[in-house]
Amino acid sequence: MKGFASDNYSGVHPEVLEAMIAANAGHAPAYGEDPWSARAAELLREHFGERAQPFLVWNGTGANVTILRAMCRPWQAVVCAASAHINVDEAGAPEFHVGAKLVDLATPDGKLTPELVERAVIRVGDEHAVQPGVVSITQSTELGTVYRVEEIRALADLAHARGMYLHVDGARLANAAAALGVPLRALTTDTGVDAVSFGGTKNGMISGEAVVLLAPELAEGFAWIRKQSMQLASKGRFLAAQFIALLEGDLWLRSAAHANAMGARLAAAVGELPGVHVTQTAQANAVFAVIDPAATAKLQEQWPFYVWDETTGEVRWMCAWDTAPEEVDAFAAAIADAVRPAAEATR
Amino acid sequence: MKGFASDNYSGVHPEVLEAMIAANAGHAPAYGEDPWSARAAELLREHFGERAQPFLVWNGTGANVTILRAMCRPWQAVVCAASAHINVDEAGAPEFHVGAKLVDLATPDGKLTPELVERAVIRVGDEHAVQPGVVSITQSTELGTVYRVEEIRALADLAHARGMYLHVDGARLANAAAALGVPLRALTTDTGVDAVSFGGTKNGMISGEAVVLLAPELAEGFAWIRKQSMQLASKGRFLAAQFIALLEGDLWLRSAAHANAMGARLAAAVGELPGVHVTQTAQANAVFAVIDPAATAKLQEQWPFYVWDETTGEVRWMCAWDTAPEEVDAFAAAIADAVRPAAEATR
Amino acid sequence: MKGFASDNYSGVHPEVLEAMIAANAGHAPAYGEDPWSARAAELLREHFGERAQPFLVWNGTGANVTILRAMCRPWQAVVCAASAHINVDEAGAPEFHVGAKLVDLATPDGKLTPELVERAVIRVGDEHAVQPGVVSITQSTELGTVYRVEEIRALADLAHARGMYLHVDGARLANAAAALGVPLRALTTDTGVDAVSFGGTKNGMISGEAVVLLAPELAEGFAWIRKQSMQLASKGRFLAAQFIALLEGDLWLRSAAHANAMGARLAAAVGELPGVHVTQTAQANAVFAVIDPAATAKLQEQWPFYVWDETTGEVRWMCAWDTAPEEVDAFAAAIADAVRPAAEATR
Amino acid sequence: MKGFASDNYSGVHPEVLEAMIAANAGHAPAYGEDPWSARAAELLREHFGERAQPFLVWNGTGANVTILRAMCRPWQAVVCAASAHINVDEAGAPEFHVGAKLVDLATPDGKLTPELVERAVIRVGDEHAVQPGVVSITQSTELGTVYRVEEIRALADLAHARGMYLHVDGARLANAAAALGVPLRALTTDTGVDAVSFGGTKNGMISGEAVVLLAPELAEGFAWIRKQSMQLASKGRFLAAQFIALLEGDLWLRSAAHANAMGARLAAAVGELPGVHVTQTAQANAVFAVIDPAATAKLQEQWPFYVWDETTGEVRWMCAWDTAPEEVDAFAAAIADAVRPAAEATR
Repeated sequence: MKGFASDNYSGVHPEVLEAMIAANAGHAPAYGEDPWSARAAELLREHFGERAQPFLVWNGTGANVTILRAMCRPWQAVVCAASAHINVDEAGAPEFHVGAKLVDLATPDGKLTPELVERAVIRVGDEHAVQPGVVSITQSTELGTVYRVEEIRALADLAHARGMYLHVDGARLANAAAALGVPLRALTTDTGVDAVSFGGTKNGMISGEAVVLLAPELAEGFAWIRKQSMQLASKGRFLAAQFIALLEGDLWLRSAAHANAMGARLAAAVGELPGVHVTQTAQANAVFAVIDPAATAKLQEQWPFYVWDETTGEVRWMCAWDTAPEEVDAFAAAIADAVRPAAEATR
Repeated sequence: MKGFASDNYSGVHPEVLEAMIAANAGHAPAYGEDPWSARAAELLREHFGERAQPFLVWNGTGANVTILRAMCRPWQAVVCAASAHINVDEAGAPEFHVGAKLVDLATPDGKLTPELVERAVIRVGDEHAVQPGVVSITQSTELGTVYRVEEIRALADLAHARGMYLHVDGARLANAAAALGVPLRALTTDTGVDAVSFGGTKNGMISGEAVVLLAPELAEGFAWIRKQSMQLASKGRFLAAQFIALLEGDLWLRSAAHANAMGARLAAAVGELPGVHVTQTAQANAVFAVIDPAATAKLQEQWPFYVWDETTGEVRWMCAWDTAPEEVDAFAAAIADAVRPAAEATR
Repeated sequence: MKGFASDNYSGVHPEVLEAMIAANAGHAPAYGEDPWSARAAELLREHFGERAQPFLVWNGTGANVTILRAMCRPWQAVVCAASAHINVDEAGAPEFHVGAKLVDLATPDGKLTPELVERAVIRVGDEHAVQPGVVSITQSTELGTVYRVEEIRALADLAHARGMYLHVDGARLANAAAALGVPLRALTTDTGVDAVSFGGTKNGMISGEAVVLLAPELAEGFAWIRKQSMQLASKGRFLAAQFIALLEGDLWLRSAAHANAMGARLAAAVGELPGVHVTQTAQANAVFAVIDPAATAKLQEQWPFYVWDETTGEVRWMCAWDTAPEEVDAFAAAIADAVRPAAEATR
Repeated sequence: MKGFASDNYSGVHPEVLEAMIAANAGHAPAYGEDPWSARAAELLREHFGERAQPFLVWNGTGANVTILRAMCRPWQAVVCAASAHINVDEAGAPEFHVGAKLVDLATPDGKLTPELVERAVIRVGDEHAVQPGVVSITQSTELGTVYRVEEIRALADLAHARGMYLHVDGARLANAAAALGVPLRALTTDTGVDAVSFGGTKNGMISGEAVVLLAPELAEGFAWIRKQSMQLASKGRFLAAQFIALLEGDLWLRSAAHANAMGARLAAAVGELPGVHVTQTAQANAVFAVIDPAATAKLQEQWPFYVWDETTGEVRWMCAWDTAPEEVDAFAAAIADAVRPAAEATR
């Protein structure tokens, strides 16, 4: 029985594993000079458009940090949601490696808006203050919500009008695309996004993310940023083969859509339960809800998942590419059982 | 036909691949909280001793940088050979992430000596000068040579007497241990080494290195150094499974010993050839030689390998765990052919 | 006529200038090895206690950054008020040089409280999150308020209980001491503060601040932090002479008390005016008030001062050691004139 | 009696002090928005040419580091002489703040040559290696030698041909200009130099250096680099007033020429003494010589100066703007006395 702790608790998709095994054929040039890496780059350009400049890296923090290093100088600010992964889950990596200040904004749903960003673009030209450099959003967000295409475009327009770049932390970009039923480029290249951290790990790979640079000037020096940031794989073909498996057919979409469907199934099953207060619209593969802490404790004896906010009792239930419908149903039933006492007590 | 460009042109050893496939069993806690990671840590402690504190990371630069971050403050110096990987092949990652100065010393064979290091320990207590912090050596060296146990002990003693740490970049530590016929701990823990970057990638893994901390205080905060340095794998079991494959039996030693044997075979086959001047004693899996540039050009049409020094015509021929004896023999024959014209001309 | 823009618009106090002139006597060892530097250190120890370890630096940002470099590692967090100088007026210097994240908390009056800090001490031991490292407060605050001794002690106790240091940005520490009628050490050493940025520039010096380390271990390596942070003066005697002038007698106190008195005089003169809403208790040398923007514009034609918050119309009026009572009175009269139209309109 | 330890053992020139006193007139805008700062900038443009963009900073390390931050990204290399101040006397500040690697080259006389630099421009385009970014020279050098105009032009041409900037650490640029009898711009702007650290402290100021940017694009963002690097003075008029004193008339030249003349006088007086081996041509204000260590010890009882190289017994005797001819003569006589025993013993 799998849990609902995280989509990175999942394993590797068999098709991805097959591709890695197939790539294990004799010697190949290291550091991305191999045919698999060329093919992966080609596929990334197919999905993100011809001007996309892809660089494979180890992980999501690596993708985010290297992009921010390319996008801003240390006296610039990165505007992000307070809940952003770069702000709260990367142990200060962006500040340390980029030197820049993260200007984090409270949001109800993990999504920046032009109004919020506008409020952070202050003291432009004032040498005592950090200067606006980057707007960074997460898609789908850390709270399981999804930016619509026009919301991203509005942020891109604002960012560019203010001389800033727009970065998308797309650790779960595939889930967002699946949720909206649009291709990857509709969410990024075609709406003015300047660079994307395109996630593979949570979507069935062993490890690996793709930096996809869309503003052409960002690629200048990026090879050195990647290498200096300890993100250049020597046996690059094994990273590349995984992306080929995802992107050559529709595996990226199938897997993400399945995870989303499981999230929706879970939300539907528990959303009306007395004693479960779903706090965010479950647009991607995560369900956030407030339940009684005693229920949480009881559930966690069998099902791993995380408490999101100790003070409110909010929990996060995350589905993955390999979550089975029966597991969702069993978990939903367990939730119903666990919350019943508290619900009855408050009736 | 494989070439002699690098041991990281090689693929993944079948036993390692099997272990990864076996690890793909349902969900597992992320970030190293899984049973595979626990087992890998146990095995690393078996090989390096009970006080070893292991942390798995993505790659060699990641291992080196995170260790140096733990070992020194930014006003300290890292003393290394001029040929050290940290000095010439990491795009300045140590300087950027640690802030420290690398004090690089010329050596004939890639090996530091106490006399050389002593010369770099200067201006102690002078606030205008960087202060001695770390001695970093590579084992086996970038030039295919190997430090003997007593040479390492002498460096450790000197470092400690001077208030410095001793770091071993062991991207090819297995090759050194195989060459000397000693266990890994004889080269490290038992001789006073304070931390090791223990390489897996070049020895048959897809990717992954182990930071092995031996001085206990270095572990304080190291989990954050690793995370902040973008070196923490989310699906950690797949890194760990590879190390288990290497270390549970003698695969690490078999593979390294084989690569060394291929290096020795090549050195023996070409060492006496007129027109081939072997420049370093081939103690591990690499052969360095000066040959006629025309011969190099001709050979490279079929066999990938690197020119090490454009100005002298020195080349590097590197063997790997998967280099076949027939490949060595064929390559040696090709070398003999290629150097013949120049050799005859100078007779 | 002087304005009310900032206490660093003021010049140098004649007694400070005299001391500098007197220090210009032939040659003296550079980099603080001169008798003036020794005397300044002695005086700082007299004021802050025997365990104080003083280091002179160029400016306030230099003092703050070097102290934070000594206090925390890059994966730690510095908890501060959102209005803190380190957070909004140092162009990101703390993030860039320390690497650390500033966790900034909203406050009504520029003052942290144990309750606020407690809320920021989260995820202790979680390798994905920055770890609590430092609590940094400003005394007197950027909003002209003053921490009482017991408030500082409560913060020190909390910080230490949580394994954190307490830093005081004392660019205007003299004003706070004057306001409370206590010696400098009562606000710092005797309440558990671990290090102080002790300001001289705003209190009548040309330039210069003193880093005063109180936790003994912070001094280890600090000489290199200062030098590497570009904060070591070569002709150190001229920095030291200024501090001698301030600290040998009571000039530090006279100057600060005068500036405070001018602040109080101004607050008293305008506090009851219709059309002037004083927003903070003027405990030190600054008055904050909301007035009609048209009044601000009219006043600024003659009197320099800063708008603190464009959105609310809040302004800051800052008095200095050299602000004359007649200037305060004239300015107060001008304010009364300027706000009259708006006040009358809303009657 | 003054010593020969360093030109920063000297005091402040009376004309500089007068200018500071005169600048102490009421309030003035902070952070360089005052009339003195405007005038200093104007004078710097007069001396360095209209395209010069000046920024005043605290000290020489501050000037060097801020310029290097503007000139290069962290994966680039700064090529310098091994004896360069940035390499050996700034406690690793360039590495720490810029992140870049210093590639230091051995020289006989502290001077880089195109041949030397050419040798360090390697592996261009190789993502594993730091990339050539800056050539940095010191004028006059740390060894008291001076680059001729055509030597600087050759380095500038090479640097630009290789896509690099040329930086001049001009802590003693005035001494070089005085030695060559050329204006400041002949040594810098007119020969293709891209930025200069123009020193004031050693030439009679209390403190203060000017960053003079000559390549226009370097000024973009430089205000933030200065502020973030803790190099922005709040009471900027007092820095500016000192530069006005130096540059409005010929004080900069008089002072430097005098120091040079004292250096030449000393070199002439001791150059032929048996037992004194002058090791560098004394082109500026320093004399380097090897003498018997016993003589050094005896001399240092009365005259402060530094041993430059413990292993060879080389010493440095530095003259300043305030060194008196009688002091030189007395010191020369003392040297003659001190070296006599050893000289007689080896006759």
